[in-house]
Amino acid sequence: MSENKIPYKIYLEESEMPKQWYNMRADMKNKPAPLLNPATLKPLTAEELIPIFCEELVKQELDETTPFVDIPQEIQEYYKTYRPSPTMRAYHLEKALGTPAKIYYKFEGNNTSGSHKLNSALAQAYYAKKQGLKGVTTETGAGQWGTALSMACSYFDLDCKVFMVKVSYEQKPFRREVMRTYGANVTPSPSMTTEVGKKILAEHPGTTGSLGCAISEAVEVATKSEGYRYVLGSVLNQVLLHQSVIGLETKIALDKYNITPDIIIGCAGGGSNLGGLIAPFMGEKLRGEKDYRFIAVEPASCPSFTRGKFAYDFCDTGMICPLAKMYTLGSGFMPSPNHAGGLRFHGMSSTLSQLYHDGFMEAVAVEQTQVFEAAEQFARTEGILPAPESSHAIRAAIDEALKCKETGEEKTILFGLTGTGYFDMYAYEAFHDGTMTDYIPTEEDLAQGFAGIPKFPGNEI
Amino acid sequence: MSENKIPYKIYLEESEMPKQWYNMRADMKNKPAPLLNPATLKPLTAEELIPIFCEELVKQELDETTPFVDIPQEIQEYYKTYRPSPTMRAYHLEKALGTPAKIYYKFEGNNTSGSHKLNSALAQAYYAKKQGLKGVTTETGAGQWGTALSMACSYFDLDCKVFMVKVSYEQKPFRREVMRTYGANVTPSPSMTTEVGKKILAEHPGTTGSLGCAISEAVEVATKSEGYRYVLGSVLNQVLLHQSVIGLETKIALDKYNITPDIIIGCAGGGSNLGGLIAPFMGEKLRGEKDYRFIAVEPASCPSFTRGKFAYDFCDTGMICPLAKMYTLGSGFMPSPNHAGGLRFHGMSSTLSQLYHDGFMEAVAVEQTQVFEAAEQFARTEGILPAPESSHAIRAAIDEALKCKETGEEKTILFGLTGTGYFDMYAYEAFHDGTMTDYIPTEEDLAQGFAGIPKFPGNEI
Repeated sequence: MSENKIPYKIYLEESEMPKQWYNMRADMKNKPAPLLNPATLKPLTAEELIPIFCEELVKQELDETTPFVDIPQEIQEYYKTYRPSPTMRAYHLEKALGTPAKIYYKFEGNNTSGSHKLNSALAQAYYAKKQGLKGVTTETGAGQWGTALSMACSYFDLDCKVFMVKVSYEQKPFRREVMRTYGANVTPSPSMTTEVGKKILAEHPGTTGSLGCAISEAVEVATKSEGYRYVLGSVLNQVLLHQSVIGLETKIALDKYNITPDIIIGCAGGGSNLGGLIAPFMGEKLRGEKDYRFIAVEPASCPSFTRGKFAYDFCDTGMICPLAKMYTLGSGFMPSPNHAGGLRFHGMSSTLSQLYHDGFMEAVAVEQTQVFEAAEQFARTEGILPAPESSHAIRAAIDEALKCKETGEEKTILFGLTGTGYFDMYAYEAFHDGTMTDYIPTEEDLAQGFAGIPKFPGNEI
Repeated sequence: MSENKIPYKIYLEESEMPKQWYNMRADMKNKPAPLLNPATLKPLTAEELIPIFCEELVKQELDETTPFVDIPQEIQEYYKTYRPSPTMRAYHLEKALGTPAKIYYKFEGNNTSGSHKLNSALAQAYYAKKQGLKGVTTETGAGQWGTALSMACSYFDLDCKVFMVKVSYEQKPFRREVMRTYGANVTPSPSMTTEVGKKILAEHPGTTGSLGCAISEAVEVATKSEGYRYVLGSVLNQVLLHQSVIGLETKIALDKYNITPDIIIGCAGGGSNLGGLIAPFMGEKLRGEKDYRFIAVEPASCPSFTRGKFAYDFCDTGMICPLAKMYTLGSGFMPSPNHAGGLRFHGMSSTLSQLYHDGFMEAVAVEQTQVFEAAEQFARTEGILPAPESSHAIRAAIDEALKCKETGEEKTILFGLTGTGYFDMYAYEAFHDGTMTDYIPTEEDLAQGFAGIPKFPGNEI
């Protein structure tokens, strides 16, 4: 193997790192539909968003024409502490599969948040600090985003209030302690610290919480506290913009060795990783310069792309957030409790939804036991213990590589390895013990979710 | 900060990575004293060691004259999947401390074992496979070594039997599941699967186990099973040899930028990380080419260097292993249960003990609440959540940097950041909750431990 010219890990020098983010929307002919005010059904204005989000982030959210945005120097400095992330050649996995395909992966797990989430957390904390804010609020489920934001806030000396879904708070005490190490204030949600939390607890005394409820609490605290704003780790256009650093680095690394991927694969929950990884490649496709196959991989238990509707829907289960046009299962849809990984969001980034709708991207849904089989094979060959979310992409990459084995094609496959699974060992335990099951929503399950999609002229589904 | 010429992370190209390990003993005028057979009190021969250890490893253990040992090509290939590890400049920590000192650290935590242990695990598994063995046995406490060995065995298709101290097995289920993911067989120790385990359970039915007991079980299984050998993750000369890759890489990285450390700091339990980090620098000092200050940092609760005796002692609490001449607290010494981190071994590598005895190295002992204060300050500035063990080195590095702040000296400080603390969040929780306490053994505690050191002519203490 030593005669290979491509190293196991392609690194960039600091001087080679991206200095600008890339905004895919600038190259899209069909722009993603705007966010709507749920009361007026009119596009949300900057003025309406500024009480909730930081000003610069609102600007980024609404800007669909600027292709490149300078990465502020201070963010670049923090990126340098854990970036560039390596673009890896999966030699050992290829060998184990016996495939002629060449497999690459971009590994985003080598930072304490354990995932790519830090890329956007740093940007959002920076803009909050620049605006002179005291702090930010957010929600977290599994805890990756909360950890990333805690880190970013400790760097920029901002207060960080995290509402953590109660069941996760109790089942994942380690995640909570990591956030506390970075100085964050972590509250199990629903809590008695907000009006909405009190109301929910009064109505459902035994509830273990939900992401939708945690969002509502975080938004309430942000809007009612002087000097605070709310921040979000996925779905939004601003997040995809920041995450483009993943794809930009990957492209620079591959270009150094004249490698052109045939297939680019990413897992898809809200779309932050997928949108970031594919960004510069999709840009080439949108501009007609090059063609690539893009594959979004989602859990069969939460199949927004493959079985959802393309419609305006609420982003939260509490139905207080703006309406976004996206592939959605309905804001009331909940994946079965046996679903172990993340990727539980009922909708999908508007930008990615539009690209999928316009045929620029494919999507597949995979079942979780297959996902953990792929995760274990990957761990045993490549060494890295992948997050369940990331393992969806591994599953699809292995499947494509096995197709190449059948056909003899030497395709080049690139996938995003978004993070590590160190805090997901209960799920691995269930897999090892054979107690993990699969779940595919029935048509009835889906119909129930779809029933929650708001009905108004132009939003027929 | 962008005008600095030294990057945050100094990486090496694959072509720049070390091709040979370095054996410090070759340059030592006073060689470490040989292992003794406890029955005959004569130096152990290769023949006596071969039933327990792999042949090539026995050769490495006993070889005190060869300075450089080729790293086999297959080990180099696996090193390339997670090495070179970055040599980092702690710009943000320096700024937070307001010190004129320049602080560098070698970060060994970016692999799934979460520590430097994988460097030796790969070598030991490789030699076991080369010898045609079926598998290896070992013990693990906190689980870093067990994880590393599980990974290495999955790469080389070897069976891996890990005896995990029962209290850790129960309190650290995540570590256990990581090992299972790599296909290892993990047994809580003491167990009913060995004679020694049965005996201990009969005598102490409620025992939660100890490292000494787990060693005894692992050795029993290795010597009684066809095609198995026992492997160990620290203390031994072979381990220090393999771990020299840490220091060799660091030296190549620093030399690229003409950086010469004034002070080199490592945490010290059995000595595997410290011995590996300092190796090439100590070589220069031993050969009279350059001078460096070396500081070993140990827990005040288990102070083998700073308060131990330099004498022949057993390496295990069961007193079945060979006698090694080392700084020791007595094989029966147990750190107080409130001690959170690793570094609990009662003795110290013979090689490092000899170097310390001959004045080539200093040692300091630090208390654990101070260690966690340093860990938290490091996490909040540099982002990485350090292992408690590694944080001993951080504490000493910060203390040296603060001395520089007082004197105005621009010293260059290098320390080893051996790993991450993702599986140590209970200890962080205790620190956050203010329930963590310190413990310094009394003279009486020490006297009790010293009483267990074997008495024979020439071993007066």
